[in-house]
Amino acid sequence: MLFHVTMDVRIPADADPVRIDALKVAEKARCAALMEQGVWRHIWRVVGRYRNVSIFDVSDNAELHEVLMTLPLFPYMQIDVTPLCRHASSIRDDDR
Amino acid sequence: MLFHVTMDVRIPADADPVRIDALKVAEKARCAALMEQGVWRHIWRVVGRYRNVSIFDVSDNAELHEVLMTLPLFPYMQIDVTPLCRHASSIRDDDR
Amino acid sequence: MLFHVTMDVRIPADADPVRIDALKVAEKARCAALMEQGVWRHIWRVVGRYRNVSIFDVSDNAELHEVLMTLPLFPYMQIDVTPLCRHASSIRDDDR
Amino acid sequence: MLFHVTMDVRIPADADPVRIDALKVAEKARCAALMEQGVWRHIWRVVGRYRNVSIFDVSDNAELHEVLMTLPLFPYMQIDVTPLCRHASSIRDDDR
Amino acid sequence: MLFHVTMDVRIPADADPVRIDALKVAEKARCAALMEQGVWRHIWRVVGRYRNVSIFDVSDNAELHEVLMTLPLFPYMQIDVTPLCRHASSIRDDDR
Amino acid sequence: MLFHVTMDVRIPADADPVRIDALKVAEKARCAALMEQGVWRHIWRVVGRYRNVSIFDVSDNAELHEVLMTLPLFPYMQIDVTPLCRHASSIRDDDR
Amino acid sequence: MLFHVTMDVRIPADADPVRIDALKVAEKARCAALMEQGVWRHIWRVVGRYRNVSIFDVSDNAELHEVLMTLPLFPYMQIDVTPLCRHASSIRDDDR
Amino acid sequence: MLFHVTMDVRIPADADPVRIDALKVAEKARCAALMEQGVWRHIWRVVGRYRNVSIFDVSDNAELHEVLMTLPLFPYMQIDVTPLCRHASSIRDDDR
Amino acid sequence: MLFHVTMDVRIPADADPVRIDALKVAEKARCAALMEQGVWRHIWRVVGRYRNVSIFDVSDNAELHEVLMTLPLFPYMQIDVTPLCRHASSIRDDDR
Amino acid sequence: MLFHVTMDVRIPADADPVRIDALKVAEKARCAALMEQGVWRHIWRVVGRYRNVSIFDVSDNAELHEVLMTLPLFPYMQIDVTPLCRHASSIRDDDR
Repeated sequence: MLFHVTMDVRIPADADPVRIDALKVAEKARCAALMEQGVWRHIWRVVGRYRNVSIFDVSDNAELHEVLMTLPLFPYMQIDVTPLCRHASSIRDDDR
Repeated sequence: MLFHVTMDVRIPADADPVRIDALKVAEKARCAALMEQGVWRHIWRVVGRYRNVSIFDVSDNAELHEVLMTLPLFPYMQIDVTPLCRHASSIRDDDR
Repeated sequence: MLFHVTMDVRIPADADPVRIDALKVAEKARCAALMEQGVWRHIWRVVGRYRNVSIFDVSDNAELHEVLMTLPLFPYMQIDVTPLCRHASSIRDDDR
Repeated sequence: MLFHVTMDVRIPADADPVRIDALKVAEKARCAALMEQGVWRHIWRVVGRYRNVSIFDVSDNAELHEVLMTLPLFPYMQIDVTPLCRHASSIRDDDR
Repeated sequence: MLFHVTMDVRIPADADPVRIDALKVAEKARCAALMEQGVWRHIWRVVGRYRNVSIFDVSDNAELHEVLMTLPLFPYMQIDVTPLCRHASSIRDDDR
Repeated sequence: MLFHVTMDVRIPADADPVRIDALKVAEKARCAALMEQGVWRHIWRVVGRYRNVSIFDVSDNAELHEVLMTLPLFPYMQIDVTPLCRHASSIRDDDR
Repeated sequence: MLFHVTMDVRIPADADPVRIDALKVAEKARCAALMEQGVWRHIWRVVGRYRNVSIFDVSDNAELHEVLMTLPLFPYMQIDVTPLCRHASSIRDDDR
Repeated sequence: MLFHVTMDVRIPADADPVRIDALKVAEKARCAALMEQGVWRHIWRVVGRYRNVSIFDVSDNAELHEVLMTLPLFPYMQIDVTPLCRHASSIRDDDR
Repeated sequence: MLFHVTMDVRIPADADPVRIDALKVAEKARCAALMEQGVWRHIWRVVGRYRNVSIFDVSDNAELHEVLMTLPLFPYMQIDVTPLCRHASSIRDDDR
Repeated sequence: MLFHVTMDVRIPADADPVRIDALKVAEKARCAALMEQGVWRHIWRVVGRYRNVSIFDVSDNAELHEVLMTLPLFPYMQIDVTPLCRHASSIRDDDR
């Protein structure tokens, strides 16, 4: 089941840079693991912004919430979630 | 080069249903052709809305504009375009 | 799986009242059937508005989209969908 | 009498984590007590957000205000209140 | 129990003026009756707008909804409802 | 001459609580004095918010500005002012 | 007493041009008369828009409402009113 | 050439009051000098807000920018600029 | 003197296509003439929209208003005007 | 390939002025270098704001993102990117 998710990352100007760098490393590793599992299906960067657009493939809402809540940078993210479904015009098997 | 595109379709209540149905058939065929060419890479339906979220892969801005302007339902669409680029965390070859 | 759905009904002033009344009767019957099936779990009216707030319980996004798209008044509705999950503070078994 | 209430929790980044944890424990206990009394009828978590959607059943506006103002996390909440009433299409006895 | 209600009246340009005038006469009579009953406690006109600000005193949400829905101009109104309660600083007996 | 005034109070999380409490006491006394003079005609609390809705009766714009600027909590308030006049439907002598 | 007023004029595309032209002539004459009386103290056109920014000098809210409601183009205007008072920095006698 | 300018002054709660007071004195003196030169043609205070509405008369955009950027309180202002021109209905010689 | 101007073109669905086509031809000719005069310095199309972004070089606000008001498609445009001035970082002679 | 870019610069009030000045010098030098390369084709200052409007000419989205992310003031900027293409009415060779 697919969801469109946008994440805006907002690091406060006075945050400890060492801690933030550690969180970014952990975030990248967590993203890679979720992509390999097929849960985080796509991620793109929005040009000129500290924002990504992602597609998640999860079994239900609870799994999506659990995944998002445990992202290392979650405390600094503004997240928007939009449920998707297959479009009648799609010819791609994996757009479902 | 990837772009995130949302299309809201707004058919006026007094539009001729025969003409609209013909446009929808033409739209679906055009979408399928563009997907086969790899230009319209993804399309998903937003749950509960007459709106889609799409990913286009084009060679430049002019090609994207040309493609969008010639969609059969273009006169009834509100379109938003966001330029994307590869995310440093992506492990998928085709998220570029 | 639960979703929070709001529906704003907007009937154009020049719509045929006989047809609209028929749609409202059909809408009410469809709502009752979906409530009995447990799909449309709750519906409340917003005071002073032609708007409802509803809770749907469906197996996936596709089912929710199918249900909403086939509501008799769908062409006159502005719908917003928000995915929900169980709240850690809830003590009710059915708030999941 | 039913009200639709949304609560966005916004903990400042520099808040004392020990104090916040204590407030969260107290909030959860208060929520459970109000649910058992039937005042806080439903609570759901919005996926990907530190926000809940709730339904309160109170005898009047003053009781709702008193209940909301005395929540342990109230100083960190942005609250929106919408009055509800029974929907003509509802077949559930408790959607009133 | 008090509610703050704003009503924006939006008469379509092509509405039948005879019918609209009749609705305005009926609206004024209905307003006067509700004021005499103490239900429509206050009404003021917003300067330069076809909008009023009102205070209603009703026994519950359902009564308020019933009163608003049966106003003659309801089909042409955009209504916003805000629940009020007594302010700790008030010294007026009737601000409750 | 009547004005509709809303006041949102926003106390910064790091404000000195002793000073804020003193300001609240002063605010309440100032409000009571203005109500006795008939200048602050009504005040209601918005349910679930640190916001009030008020009606002021002043001789001109300058008096209203002077009254609002000298409220003890003014530095922490976001204030919106809307000019009102008598509504043609009102039957109350004091809704002017 | 001064008010800042903006007026957006929105003529429907299907309005009778003869009637609209007559209203514009009447509007211009009414504006000139009010300027000579000193009630409509200033009027400027916003570049590129069918919108004006005006300053009115009236004895009270009711007079302003009466003046605005009786403008020939009032049914086609969206009006915003902001109460003004003398600025402490002004050195002009008539900015009050 | 006339411009409509609004200035919202937002002094942070933790700003040094001695420095802010000095800036306010300098701002007032600068405003008076610009009014005497005819550059700052009008200034009014918005009732209940720390905001002014002003009319500037400058020879070109660059002069307006230079004047605004060098205001003592500029670092604390949110400024909106709207180009104006003579309204066809104006009978005042100086509304140009 | 430079201005940033955006124009959204909104042709009603029931407009006479012959008349609209004639207006578009006239608009294109007018644009070309103004570009040759150096008044309409730049025009770009926003991808996926019936909107342009333009830079105008005029002697004053009144000239800009006159130019915009006499565009053949003006009755169908929503126009936003932003005054520009030379940026301190520019090395181009004509960015002024 | 052209993009319309706006940059709002927001320096926190408590930022180290020496460091900010160094960043501004570096920003200006970077801007000049990019203008000489033809990448940053235009830059204008918005009157009364710490905001610029720019036109970039890049080979693809990734290059634009790289350029924007490495601007010295990037951490303090809110950036909006809009893809442009040649307008059918343009007679300038370089508006593409």
